[in-house]
Amino acid sequence: MIKVALDAMGGDHAPSQIVEGAVLAAKESAGLYHIVLCGPEELVRSELSRLGYDGDGISVVDAPELVAMDESPMQVLKTKQNSGLVVSVGLQKKGLVQASVSAGNSGAMMAACLMILGRFGNIARPAIALNMPNHKGPCVMLDMGANVDEKPQMLVDFAHCGSVYAEAIYGIENPRVGLINMGEEEKKGTEVIQEAHQLLKSSGLNFIGNVEGRDVLAGMADVIVTPGFTGNVILKLIEGFYELHQHLFGHIDTPAGREFEKQWDYRNHGGGLLLGLNGTGIIAHGRSDALAVKNAVITAYKLAEAKVSEKIALRLGSPSK
Amino acid sequence: MIKVALDAMGGDHAPSQIVEGAVLAAKESAGLYHIVLCGPEELVRSELSRLGYDGDGISVVDAPELVAMDESPMQVLKTKQNSGLVVSVGLQKKGLVQASVSAGNSGAMMAACLMILGRFGNIARPAIALNMPNHKGPCVMLDMGANVDEKPQMLVDFAHCGSVYAEAIYGIENPRVGLINMGEEEKKGTEVIQEAHQLLKSSGLNFIGNVEGRDVLAGMADVIVTPGFTGNVILKLIEGFYELHQHLFGHIDTPAGREFEKQWDYRNHGGGLLLGLNGTGIIAHGRSDALAVKNAVITAYKLAEAKVSEKIALRLGSPSK
Repeated sequence: MIKVALDAMGGDHAPSQIVEGAVLAAKESAGLYHIVLCGPEELVRSELSRLGYDGDGISVVDAPELVAMDESPMQVLKTKQNSGLVVSVGLQKKGLVQASVSAGNSGAMMAACLMILGRFGNIARPAIALNMPNHKGPCVMLDMGANVDEKPQMLVDFAHCGSVYAEAIYGIENPRVGLINMGEEEKKGTEVIQEAHQLLKSSGLNFIGNVEGRDVLAGMADVIVTPGFTGNVILKLIEGFYELHQHLFGHIDTPAGREFEKQWDYRNHGGGLLLGLNGTGIIAHGRSDALAVKNAVITAYKLAEAKVSEKIALRLGSPSK
Repeated sequence: MIKVALDAMGGDHAPSQIVEGAVLAAKESAGLYHIVLCGPEELVRSELSRLGYDGDGISVVDAPELVAMDESPMQVLKTKQNSGLVVSVGLQKKGLVQASVSAGNSGAMMAACLMILGRFGNIARPAIALNMPNHKGPCVMLDMGANVDEKPQMLVDFAHCGSVYAEAIYGIENPRVGLINMGEEEKKGTEVIQEAHQLLKSSGLNFIGNVEGRDVLAGMADVIVTPGFTGNVILKLIEGFYELHQHLFGHIDTPAGREFEKQWDYRNHGGGLLLGLNGTGIIAHGRSDALAVKNAVITAYKLAEAKVSEKIALRLGSPSK
């Protein structure tokens, strides 16, 4: 059975919404996965009691230290070994769980996964991947902000990671890979993007060429690759668009309205998936409520169950440790 | 009186929608501006007859050559001296008109403006600025794709251009300038962005710091600066949002729905404004219909009337020629 460690104290609405999300996930687990809540044991147990949950599927590991949202990642790794965030990744390193989820300090979660789990030998840096709003079928995009100033080859690594993910999780054979650019022509874009384009053409991937901002929403590609800077801007813009839409129009109770909310509400996306690690890590949104947490846990389970991490290793080289 | 030259043969719907846009603009001119349609004279005149327009406010200059959307800009400048695109910019150089508009080959229009009008001495490259959808007040963003691989100082130049525009056109004193980044902290982002951040702090501009993708829509800043690559991705994404929204929900006939269309329909934005030139140039959307053309002409008139180009020169150094 897959075990998913969950940082009970990470995020704006911790611990109440995190614990509630764990309970929601546990109720849907059908015995397929087990959740390990990492946080101050008494506090976490009292939250579970408040929710009236004494069922199976959840255990608690004591992790009394707290991580602030603005603490430096290195500081957290050095001084907060007994925080829910670090403990949840540590349990994975020890083989006691198969995936780790935190809605807390995202830089610290990234650093913990990178330093504790390690990366694959041939991957320079892991990327954050995201299931994108798309009305034509599933689509994964990366990097959403783990990296800056990437070398062209890093974008090819991202494309491999995304392809493995799309095959394993969406069941798409030979997924179409697009590269975000400012035009369709090969010669468009920054030097790095132009060079990445050439590398992608000879990568063996199903590279369909450049895609533009509007194609992101149009189902042109199954995997969309972009530098972390651009990806992060896109991610925040998509959030802003959805917020604006909800502010202007609220819930539109038609099939299109319900589908729109399903696609665009970040809580349904399962969080930011760290691909390229020697393990499975998910950075949930800092504002995650119980629904977002539930979906992040289920996504973590699916990633571990489908052995996405191992499949990326097979594709790109063996783990570094 | 301000005269605006308009390339009658540029864009997917030329000449019919271009000429119709000119007629719409002329009918609203109240004697403030005059339109010079540049294109094959007989064809343009027959379009005017078709529309039953024999009023004042429009004249025609014969420009028989045609520019294809995919012709290389340098090729156009060399071989298509008698195209509507090149002629409309040439008339400005001769002082016969004060602004030029084309919905045609945007690279060629950019090159024509740059080579024929010239740039200001201290500006390395002009930028494309765009009025952004914003429900809290006007907002201009640049660069939307004229440049790639900018040096940090170029982003400061963009910020000055945008500030002058916001003061002159929006009437905002000391406009707030934001820099697109992947987080609020100074140390976030690419090397270029981090350096630009420091330069902007000491630029004398009303620099409010980094803004994120979601802030673009939230009225956080009056002027938003970003490299051309990111700006172009944002521009296309915003177009994609709007198209998707119209596809899903159509016209929503409420005050919020009407305001949404007013803000998000690119046809209301007046086109891409070339800032940093020794003159006034507008690149209208290739898909422009009559409404979009009308608004581009009116925007060109406003830019010329408010002497935005001259004010940018005063701020940043004298014209190069």
